[in-house]
Amino acid sequence: MLRTHFVSELNPALEGKEIVLAGWIHNLRDLGGKKFILLRDKSGIGQVVVDKSSPSFEITKELSQETAVQVRGFVKADKRAPNGVEVSCQELKILSKAKAPLPLDVADKVKADIEVRLKERLLDLRRLEMQAMIRVQSTAVRTFRETLYRNGFFEVFTPKIIATGTEGGAQLFPVIYFGKEAFLAQSPQLYKELLAGAVERVFEVAPAWRAEESDTPYHLAEFVSMDVEMAFADYNDVMNVVEEVIANVLDNIAKYHEADLAILNHKLPSITRPIKRVTYREAIEILQSQGLQIKFGDDISTPESRILNKVLGQDLYFITDWPADARPFYTRRKERDPEVSESFDLVYRWLELVSGSSRNYTREVLEKELRSRGLNPANFEFFLKWFDYGIPPHAGFGMGLQRFMLMLTGLQNVKEVSLFPRDKKRLIP
Amino acid sequence: MLRTHFVSELNPALEGKEIVLAGWIHNLRDLGGKKFILLRDKSGIGQVVVDKSSPSFEITKELSQETAVQVRGFVKADKRAPNGVEVSCQELKILSKAKAPLPLDVADKVKADIEVRLKERLLDLRRLEMQAMIRVQSTAVRTFRETLYRNGFFEVFTPKIIATGTEGGAQLFPVIYFGKEAFLAQSPQLYKELLAGAVERVFEVAPAWRAEESDTPYHLAEFVSMDVEMAFADYNDVMNVVEEVIANVLDNIAKYHEADLAILNHKLPSITRPIKRVTYREAIEILQSQGLQIKFGDDISTPESRILNKVLGQDLYFITDWPADARPFYTRRKERDPEVSESFDLVYRWLELVSGSSRNYTREVLEKELRSRGLNPANFEFFLKWFDYGIPPHAGFGMGLQRFMLMLTGLQNVKEVSLFPRDKKRLIP
Repeated sequence: MLRTHFVSELNPALEGKEIVLAGWIHNLRDLGGKKFILLRDKSGIGQVVVDKSSPSFEITKELSQETAVQVRGFVKADKRAPNGVEVSCQELKILSKAKAPLPLDVADKVKADIEVRLKERLLDLRRLEMQAMIRVQSTAVRTFRETLYRNGFFEVFTPKIIATGTEGGAQLFPVIYFGKEAFLAQSPQLYKELLAGAVERVFEVAPAWRAEESDTPYHLAEFVSMDVEMAFADYNDVMNVVEEVIANVLDNIAKYHEADLAILNHKLPSITRPIKRVTYREAIEILQSQGLQIKFGDDISTPESRILNKVLGQDLYFITDWPADARPFYTRRKERDPEVSESFDLVYRWLELVSGSSRNYTREVLEKELRSRGLNPANFEFFLKWFDYGIPPHAGFGMGLQRFMLMLTGLQNVKEVSLFPRDKKRLIP
Repeated sequence: MLRTHFVSELNPALEGKEIVLAGWIHNLRDLGGKKFILLRDKSGIGQVVVDKSSPSFEITKELSQETAVQVRGFVKADKRAPNGVEVSCQELKILSKAKAPLPLDVADKVKADIEVRLKERLLDLRRLEMQAMIRVQSTAVRTFRETLYRNGFFEVFTPKIIATGTEGGAQLFPVIYFGKEAFLAQSPQLYKELLAGAVERVFEVAPAWRAEESDTPYHLAEFVSMDVEMAFADYNDVMNVVEEVIANVLDNIAKYHEADLAILNHKLPSITRPIKRVTYREAIEILQSQGLQIKFGDDISTPESRILNKVLGQDLYFITDWPADARPFYTRRKERDPEVSESFDLVYRWLELVSGSSRNYTREVLEKELRSRGLNPANFEFFLKWFDYGIPPHAGFGMGLQRFMLMLTGLQNVKEVSLFPRDKKRLIP
């Protein structure tokens, strides 16, 4: 290891101790006979002073921002420095030189244009804001999984190269698979249902693809899908799981990422538990009472959700029992009200974060739902055949990690929270 | 929820209590006026008795193996039954009927042919052995991640659709990306190196693809790659991480999966720490001393590894310092012995589980290594450009989950431990 300490580990109790740091030149100031280096590592930023009398003073002339260096020196308490200490440099070694000028200033608080940032993504990801985002994301995914482990779910890995799409075939990316045509999975829908039919409770965190033609702040061609499926359960059961996941993630981010939220200048939404559940019919009534021309069967999109957000006084709310014909064929109808389905979306203000439902589990109903959507059951035999093998009632949901991250970071575009986003025009880096 | 208890939660202390179970008919026996049902749920197998006097007796005639049912009944202590209890059925409800006969017997201990098993994978995954495998895998991946979190690593998600291959371009699956040609990533090599150059310590668990033409028990077209990259570190540092991961996983499987190991009839390998590290040169000498015609530069493949396994007396061992020319261009040479590289493989008996190295981190060295392999640096500019931005020394490794699972389960073929394997001839289910 090229260091003895991270900068965040320095404190006045180490006064006089010889230590070795390693990191990047975040900033460099020349104050007469002294050079002040702000040294950045994964833990934060610390201050290194190179005195004219130091044998390394000459080498500081070669330093520029983002050059990687190793510093040996003594800890000195100094109230003006970060953590109350600075490091008096005895030896400075350049590990890897950065060219100057750089196309993006890592230390600059003013954001560059997003196109420049994504092009020079390595430098952009070194910005404190992006580092905070990466840390928050790691905890969010970890907490998602821990919540599911605690509820008896198993982590699974489903195939990403598939013979045909579950949802009919739109927006699929073709793959040439040993000379045959195949596709990239839009979701693990089929496979997670099968696995729930084998081991009951499964989840997966994995890439998924949609050949999105449109360029919006909420869509990616490649995103991380967090999927859950649960047997012998219905949509109310999985809404409870969603709620527990959301609450635990918000708790852990608040608890462990105060500094990151400060860097991001973001306040997490507060939730009241249980999270408000309004039916689609109730939502339509609310919107009508606010003077909107809207009727049963119409979509509830961003402008309508903004109104619901306001009227309900909730940043997070479920809209349940959507019209059955507007949901995918695998969505179960409500027995006592078959015009609607056992389905839900979780909405953050006006952004759909999670979508889930009870699923159909008999071949007869699945075939009927396919036909009513103009689809030919024969083309879905690869899926239907499994329903001859005793697939129990089950329910599940999917959530897009990048949209979830918008709620957790306050950032405005899913491309910012995807490390190397893919969209219609972007394939590198 | 369609149950009040899992079968594993039943015990004599619940005597007389009314409970609801849900699961599959694992087996069914008719003993005169009584039907004995072995009911399987995710927790195990329990015994349900339906007496002739029960109003549900008639319905038992419709039962067949793998039909999903719900059972309401009373708990009765019975020493002969699993967990010391049976459930006296008051009400039996068929949730989802399985057809009979089924193409695969879930309760049969004799294994069907692997081709049949993979074709009827849903039924195969309900077999106790496959359920044990899924549980072990979930804990293995969880422990891998927890070990890395504890060492200050962040979980990341890198793009899977890429413009060009890092390793030169062989064995790539082409993707048609908005009308342009792209490929599926063989590994996150480039991206994990970049991310180590931004936030220092990263890991990823994600699919990776190799268009493998050969059909072996150790290769898949789609596998789960567990990748780690660490800045300001070298190959010795990451070998320590590998060792900690392996030791923690073995500990947790031994601790939490005794019953699963019994189902799998598998004994975990014992390791001595530190895990034995032999250099490639030492390994060649050992093999020569055993009478093999082998010299510096030759590969160490399965037959040679079997000998090393025996001579070293170790089920797990590192072979380090491989000939530099035989490793990828991003592998760093040893400064004092540039014929070899700072690289390692972790071998389980004779199977390569992990491969890692210190990486090159300056443009000059990378360009030289590319040219010495007959590759044109201009074609790698998408990768090289980042090394102008102060990429520090770093090291990392990759391990294939499915090969790791062979060690943990004693199963013999990576297709068995992949839930829905992909190979040259297999694209469904």
